[in-house]
Amino acid sequence: MAELNKVILSEKDMPKEWYNIAADLPEPLPPIIRADGVPAGPADFAPVFPMEIIKQEVSTQKWIPIPDEVISAYKVWRPSPLCRAYNLEKRLKTPARIYYKNESVSAAGSHKLNTAIPQAYYNKAEGVKRMATETGAGQWGSAMSFATQFFGLKCTVYMVRVSFDQKPYRRFLMQTYGAEVFASPSNLTHAGQEVLKKDPKSLGSLGIAISEAVEDAATHDDTKYCLGSVLNHVCMHQTIIGLEIKKQMELIGDYPDIIAACVGGGSNFAGAVFPFVADKMKGKDIRFLAVEPAACPTLTKGPYRYDFGDEAKLMPLAKMYTLGHNFMPSGIHAGGLRYHGDSPIVSYLVNKKLVEARSYKQIPCFEAAVLFAKSEGLLPAPESSHAIRAAIDEAIICRETKKEKAIVINLSGHGHFDLSAYESYLSGKMVDVEFDEKDMDRCIKELPDIK
Amino acid sequence: MAELNKVILSEKDMPKEWYNIAADLPEPLPPIIRADGVPAGPADFAPVFPMEIIKQEVSTQKWIPIPDEVISAYKVWRPSPLCRAYNLEKRLKTPARIYYKNESVSAAGSHKLNTAIPQAYYNKAEGVKRMATETGAGQWGSAMSFATQFFGLKCTVYMVRVSFDQKPYRRFLMQTYGAEVFASPSNLTHAGQEVLKKDPKSLGSLGIAISEAVEDAATHDDTKYCLGSVLNHVCMHQTIIGLEIKKQMELIGDYPDIIAACVGGGSNFAGAVFPFVADKMKGKDIRFLAVEPAACPTLTKGPYRYDFGDEAKLMPLAKMYTLGHNFMPSGIHAGGLRYHGDSPIVSYLVNKKLVEARSYKQIPCFEAAVLFAKSEGLLPAPESSHAIRAAIDEAIICRETKKEKAIVINLSGHGHFDLSAYESYLSGKMVDVEFDEKDMDRCIKELPDIK
Repeated sequence: MAELNKVILSEKDMPKEWYNIAADLPEPLPPIIRADGVPAGPADFAPVFPMEIIKQEVSTQKWIPIPDEVISAYKVWRPSPLCRAYNLEKRLKTPARIYYKNESVSAAGSHKLNTAIPQAYYNKAEGVKRMATETGAGQWGSAMSFATQFFGLKCTVYMVRVSFDQKPYRRFLMQTYGAEVFASPSNLTHAGQEVLKKDPKSLGSLGIAISEAVEDAATHDDTKYCLGSVLNHVCMHQTIIGLEIKKQMELIGDYPDIIAACVGGGSNFAGAVFPFVADKMKGKDIRFLAVEPAACPTLTKGPYRYDFGDEAKLMPLAKMYTLGHNFMPSGIHAGGLRYHGDSPIVSYLVNKKLVEARSYKQIPCFEAAVLFAKSEGLLPAPESSHAIRAAIDEAIICRETKKEKAIVINLSGHGHFDLSAYESYLSGKMVDVEFDEKDMDRCIKELPDIK
Repeated sequence: MAELNKVILSEKDMPKEWYNIAADLPEPLPPIIRADGVPAGPADFAPVFPMEIIKQEVSTQKWIPIPDEVISAYKVWRPSPLCRAYNLEKRLKTPARIYYKNESVSAAGSHKLNTAIPQAYYNKAEGVKRMATETGAGQWGSAMSFATQFFGLKCTVYMVRVSFDQKPYRRFLMQTYGAEVFASPSNLTHAGQEVLKKDPKSLGSLGIAISEAVEDAATHDDTKYCLGSVLNHVCMHQTIIGLEIKKQMELIGDYPDIIAACVGGGSNFAGAVFPFVADKMKGKDIRFLAVEPAACPTLTKGPYRYDFGDEAKLMPLAKMYTLGHNFMPSGIHAGGLRYHGDSPIVSYLVNKKLVEARSYKQIPCFEAAVLFAKSEGLLPAPESSHAIRAAIDEAIICRETKKEKAIVINLSGHGHFDLSAYESYLSGKMVDVEFDEKDMDRCIKELPDIK
């Protein structure tokens, strides 16, 4: 194997097509359905999404060509490096080879830009002038702000009020990219007004912010909505990560025994893992670790049921692992992993036992992240720390069993805007709240009864 | 020319030697002298620096081999990409080819790590157990914190009190890398105690923090001091930047007409430019733009005189452009450029008219930085924005004169910890204070009378 710290593909070797796993699944996914029980069709999505995105969402074509304009935009930061974590290996005294795919190198600091760019492009191509979206801590909003700027679209971001006030840096970044950012709930939408009427000091929630952005898109002809995870087309755009990993591992002369990625809505995990799933279905010995927070254990504790994608029930129902659309996870620092449900495809793969799910509390995740930062320099996002924790645990098993496995971490983003979380960990102030099973049971009882 | 967004050298093509410009200067540099007028020798530096660093500081050997251990550490993030700013060119409608060397990809987020790594290594090799240093906003402190962690040394950082309180994120980053960080003035040193006696609420200054770190090193046998700019060995370590640029431009089939870099102490500028200076002395048509803030116009308004390196006069005297060691520049956001003097070598080259100096106010620099971020995604550090401003102005001249020049920006670091400065610019709150010539004249009158 070549002894390189980083394997960087040349731009001409960057994948030219996304991989659509729907083509390789042994049976079709359970359909998306409307609240009235009827399967959802293109007409249901048309008010908020452009037609090309709707087509991709339901496509079963195995390879979807990446438009030239998207390739050009990707080249601003892609291909991203695959790095060997030699120093981490040394500190762990493990015979395992640990690699990390560094998605923190994008303008927005995370993998989110991989789908923000094509979403902005397809909207631009269909004459849309403005995109409306929501953001929690700001990763997705930052990505969409740059992507829209790149293609000359306007961008409106509804940012959850508590983050708007407490995490101003990501807001300033979005504004630097030219987006207009409003604290949600806002007075700009009916949905926001209703919330403010009941509670003028509402801190907001992702559910409310989604409602505001969807309403903004549905009520303005020149405006569409976009989502940063969960949906099939989003997961597909992210497969450029795994396709690059495949090429990079080939260049080194290695192949992963284990791929670990964090799971919130599932797109980061999907991106790294989907291109390898067909290999596993053909008998290849490879394991996929979907790592979620113990505070929001969708895949490890939730049932596989039909549920709404959002708290306000504006989105249709999908079959997925879920804690219930009105479940409110505790306020962990990995804000990007606090989603009640999960990608329907990732859920399907967990259900078919092709993917292993596990959960960690946040303190052991930060312990792993600090060790990683000290070893490799890169400061991981709290979300990414979950994948690192799982990889370290597997590397320790390798040390004990003397097995030389290749472990790949999908490092979703950097933690430059999360340093107060690190301070909380380092100073011993961080706490791990026990997961409230009863609260989950209460939320699951309210799920619609759909088989 | 190859149409690539990024040229990334393979690790095996990374330079194996630093370039020492002292070997190529037409005459020796004016010597460093002690306060008593005697030229400073190794014995004067031995209490605070390891012998190998002292040797490098005075060496006239043209190529200095980079130790294998330093090469290994560099490979964690180097070689850094040379990127073509296609989108910026399009927005400017310029026929110029604009490139930027992206030094923001290091663990510490800037070029500072290029010298922090070898400094930590040489100290480790000579049995030092702990490094003491100062930091203003935290760029240098972050770099040293990671570098010491990499080689298993302890690290103590004296951070200027006002930044310690107002910019906690960089402090948390240093602590994540394992450094102990104290607000300066502190009660840990005689120097700090003296300041606190007079003013218990002192906000501190870089001069005071240097005094504390130097005292810490001088009074502990196992501890040495280190500096992040100005000195010859620091500039030499940074030449890996320019040596990489040379190779990368060759790979593209291009050669710079102009290289622009910001100047504080001068090491970032030196790193990019020194490897090209010999070409210019041989008659090559290439221009070097040393870009400084109008609030601290050392090269453009200061005299070329002997002055102390620090306010407290603990360091010896060097011949350089200076505003006087007790000159206090106004509080611009580019904290890394607020140094009263400059690298003696950069000063020499400016004096010999081999380098052009220019200055900009901060508002036009932020205007340039925002345009750059919107075009290329990367959010520049306020320091780097000075080089971008100069490059943009040259590109506009190219548009007007229809000249297809190659302009290279040395992008020293990212601005992820400077977003409040961006907010200040975007909201119209940023101000540009007029430079106080009378204050400079007062400070220059106090300079020692040395020819």
